[in-house]
Amino acid sequence: MRGLHIFADFYNCPPSDYLTSAKKLRLMCIRAAQLAGLTVLGDHFYQFDGFDAIQDGGATGALVLAESHLAIHTWPERASATVDIYVCNVTGDNSGKAENLYIELVEELKPGEILVERVWRGKDEPLAAAA
Amino acid sequence: MRGLHIFADFYNCPPSDYLTSAKKLRLMCIRAAQLAGLTVLGDHFYQFDGFDAIQDGGATGALVLAESHLAIHTWPERASATVDIYVCNVTGDNSGKAENLYIELVEELKPGEILVERVWRGKDEPLAAAA
Repeated sequence: MRGLHIFADFYNCPPSDYLTSAKKLRLMCIRAAQLAGLTVLGDHFYQFDGFDAIQDGGATGALVLAESHLAIHTWPERASATVDIYVCNVTGDNSGKAENLYIELVEELKPGEILVERVWRGKDEPLAAAA
Repeated sequence: MRGLHIFADFYNCPPSDYLTSAKKLRLMCIRAAQLAGLTVLGDHFYQFDGFDAIQDGGATGALVLAESHLAIHTWPERASATVDIYVCNVTGDNSGKAENLYIELVEELKPGEILVERVWRGKDEPLAAAA
C-alpha cells in the first residue's frame, strides 16, 4: 500500500473549456492518464450549473485507475482547480507515472500558480499470505 | 477552494465483503456519504480479479460529491484499505460532514490500526468576479 499521493491546487488558470466543460475535462484527463502510462478502469464526471451567485458552472470528476485514482475539481469563477493523483506501488513503482500525469495536467490547465504537496502514504507491510 | 482533505490508510481490517466486493463497497460508501450529509452526484467502482500471485481481488472506486470526492481502494490480501475524503467549503463549512463520513467508514471497515492525516488545502482567494 505504499504509494505516492500528489495533491495540487492550481490557481490563475487561463480561461479554458477544461474548467467549464465536464465532457472536455473528462476526455483530457483520460488522454493524460493514458499518456502517462496509467490504466483507466472507469470514470465519473459531473457538470455543475452556475447554481448560485457565488459559483459558475464548474466540472468535477474522478478516474478510477488500476494504480488508484485521479480526482479533479474546477472552479472557473476562481480560475482554479484541485487535482489529486494517488498511485499504489503493489505491482511496481508507479510514482513516475503519477508525476507524468501531474505534468500533463499542468501543461493542459496552465496554472499561473500551484500549491502542491507530495505524500508517500502508508507503511510497508509483509503480505498477510506470504508463504 | 479551502477545504479539508482526510487521507487515511486502514490496516488490520477484519475479513469483510466490503474489502472484496466492489458492489457491496459501493453501496456502503453511498449510504455512508448520505448519512454524513453529503450529496452523491455519481460514482464509479471496479472489481479486481485476483490476477496474480501477490494480489487478491480487491475493490476500488470513487464517489463524485457535490462537496468534492471520496476515493477508496481495498487490498483484502493485506486486510487494508485507503480512504480519501476531500470537501471544499465554497458554499459552507463541510468539514463536519467529512468527519462524519470518515467515522462511518471506520465503523464499517473496523480497522485495527489507522494512519490518518488531515490537511486544510488551498488558500483563501477573493472571488475573481467579486463585484
